Amino acid sequence: MRVELINTGSELLFGRVLNTHHHWLAQQLARAGYTLAHQQTVPDSGEAIQAAAREAIARAELVLITGGLGPTSDDLTRQLIAELLDLSLEEHAETRDRITAHFANRNRPMPEPVFVQAQVPVGATVLRNDHGTAPGLALPTPRGWLILLPGPPRELRPMFTQAVAPLLAEKLPPENPVTIRTLKTIGIGETTVEQSIAPALAEWIAVGLEIGYCARAGEVDVRLTASGEGAADSIAQAEAVVREKLGPQIYGVDDEQLEEILIRQLTVSGQTLAVAESCTGGLMAHRLTNVPGASAVFLAGHCTYSNEAKQNTLGVLSETLAEHGAVSEAIARQMAEGARAKHGADYALATTGIAGPEGGTAEKPIGTVFIACATPEDTEVVSARIATDRETFKQLVVQRAMNLLRLAQLP
Amino acid sequence: MRVELINTGSELLFGRVLNTHHHWLAQQLARAGYTLAHQQTVPDSGEAIQAAAREAIARAELVLITGGLGPTSDDLTRQLIAELLDLSLEEHAETRDRITAHFANRNRPMPEPVFVQAQVPVGATVLRNDHGTAPGLALPTPRGWLILLPGPPRELRPMFTQAVAPLLAEKLPPENPVTIRTLKTIGIGETTVEQSIAPALAEWIAVGLEIGYCARAGEVDVRLTASGEGAADSIAQAEAVVREKLGPQIYGVDDEQLEEILIRQLTVSGQTLAVAESCTGGLMAHRLTNVPGASAVFLAGHCTYSNEAKQNTLGVLSETLAEHGAVSEAIARQMAEGARAKHGADYALATTGIAGPEGGTAEKPIGTVFIACATPEDTEVVSARIATDRETFKQLVVQRAMNLLRLAQLP
Repeated sequence: MRVELINTGSELLFGRVLNTHHHWLAQQLARAGYTLAHQQTVPDSGEAIQAAAREAIARAELVLITGGLGPTSDDLTRQLIAELLDLSLEEHAETRDRITAHFANRNRPMPEPVFVQAQVPVGATVLRNDHGTAPGLALPTPRGWLILLPGPPRELRPMFTQAVAPLLAEKLPPENPVTIRTLKTIGIGETTVEQSIAPALAEWIAVGLEIGYCARAGEVDVRLTASGEGAADSIAQAEAVVREKLGPQIYGVDDEQLEEILIRQLTVSGQTLAVAESCTGGLMAHRLTNVPGASAVFLAGHCTYSNEAKQNTLGVLSETLAEHGAVSEAIARQMAEGARAKHGADYALATTGIAGPEGGTAEKPIGTVFIACATPEDTEVVSARIATDRETFKQLVVQRAMNLLRLAQLP
Repeated sequence: MRVELINTGSELLFGRVLNTHHHWLAQQLARAGYTLAHQQTVPDSGEAIQAAAREAIARAELVLITGGLGPTSDDLTRQLIAELLDLSLEEHAETRDRITAHFANRNRPMPEPVFVQAQVPVGATVLRNDHGTAPGLALPTPRGWLILLPGPPRELRPMFTQAVAPLLAEKLPPENPVTIRTLKTIGIGETTVEQSIAPALAEWIAVGLEIGYCARAGEVDVRLTASGEGAADSIAQAEAVVREKLGPQIYGVDDEQLEEILIRQLTVSGQTLAVAESCTGGLMAHRLTNVPGASAVFLAGHCTYSNEAKQNTLGVLSETLAEHGAVSEAIARQMAEGARAKHGADYALATTGIAGPEGGTAEKPIGTVFIACATPEDTEVVSARIATDRETFKQLVVQRAMNLLRLAQLP
């Protein structure tokens, strides 16, 4: 079964907007046993949308199209697809009522053009939109199904989960599903990862296991893929081999984030965490608080950008600042220990460094960073130089800091 | 001139990785005067990469391909493209030396397979990789140029800026460049935006101005596009009309983020900011500190998740917590005023709410939020109910909080 995704939207091609639909839908499809074979982005023009849809429908059993279902004049998808499939549009009364209720609930004026969204191709299954006005549409095609979804993520996502996934499970169940297992490593290079594990996996590769490597900043993902009978066993055995070779350098599997692992470890051990951030500027707290349930173990984060804030929030000493500077081993230590003491936390992490693009010196160039992890036993401080752009720097430093705590918590 | 982008990588189709290359490259191309006409993602398989490249080369003057240049066995792009263009590979001595130096500088073992990256198609322009080992490649095609770029963003981005952009400016200068101006609005619906401005722009639409609308969470972008002689004038006049109609609901242009606007406003006025976050969990501090130069005006952020942290960091009163609860107008006010006083800041923003998925009550359901903005004159508190997923909730609350400060700072 071939599955394709078409994202419409000139804003995607102008680089105005990041295409998160592709990522999210690919994840959902993979979990449900479908593999996306192709994704493309086309501009909001009649010709491009119709050409892409025509070709995709001709070669794929399942085609998903996002965007262009809204009420403004550049929302063309509904009309174009009806034309392509030679279907006329008719008003869907329930959708008209839902649109009216949507505006009434929000006390907002209801402009007449919004009702274009209630026009649906004859024969379409209408997918209710609980978070906006444009419904999704499911249409039978000669090879299978065409699904149209609205552009805003907070409308598309619940619609996929609540309406599209059950529809696919019923109408287009996955055949010979692929099993994928991704092992996420930190702190080793891509070639070294491959050399450590590939020879030991020869036996499984010979019977169809595929291994993929994806290098990201400071990390390498190892992706094990197999299909058919015995795929799950084959992957479980291969995973055991990879774990034996790479040990604690594997920090998680599949979509797990380091912050989820930390919150889970802390929840299980009944321990608590506080963080003190200078150069990472709140990113560590942000990532930790993205995890549902974080509030039970994450007590507080402080983004102490100024020296005064480091002193009056964390108790960092002015003499130490004067002697070593804010970016130093001693200050990282005082920040972590100060945060730990202030909140009575079991653990604390702290970061101080020079993210750039300004602020470097000969002695402490841009990218210099000190990371501290305070535990009930002691405080570990590591230093590094990570010369990259400001946002990548923040990401990499947070990743290393969280990995320090992960390792400190290992039995 | 037609420009196409091909992203290779099964991890993108499995939903393992977000395609940031598409967004970033589209932005860079747009700034340089090129419009991306098509983007597609293909798996790491020989057939798919070759087919996509063959078709793109046949219809486009400029084709960019990302990924698959690394040293592992699933990195196939270099070999496949050489085959497609009927070019043999030869070793590039300078690249071999650079790879050797790369490993030596990092004191890392150098596995032999890394040298596959020094193999380049005969006649290729080699694009030096200053942040990794795989060089990029520029190859002439019958219609124009094919550019191969490495997958890791921190290798691809500087390579594009330093090598590809100058090469394109010389070899493929943009013809009849398109001028694009995006006006970013907050707090009004998409249809209302269109109805407010489209009639007044009829005169410019008649001579070729295009208007696009992109609804994002709580925001609508208005994109004005024109090409040819007089495009810049036409867009400037249209922008003036849109500004007259929408006034302060326009918060920025093009790629501007609210955090950049705030840091700029504060820098110009010589004023300072502190933030106190509960439900937004550090995201506001993170976004503010993404802006270079933030350290001059952003004094500190506190992510006070626990009641104790609200008290011992911000001076929130235990009686108020007991009487009104942590998610209340009174606590938002005390958090903002506490942060402002603690750091002697001119302004402070505070958020407290229930992000979910747990923690809602009948009286205060999930999505309830209070946002406070403390200024030298007074403290404003707004409340809202934003029922969505946890991460979108954080984003929306931060956006509203920053918009409060933007409006408070307007003359």
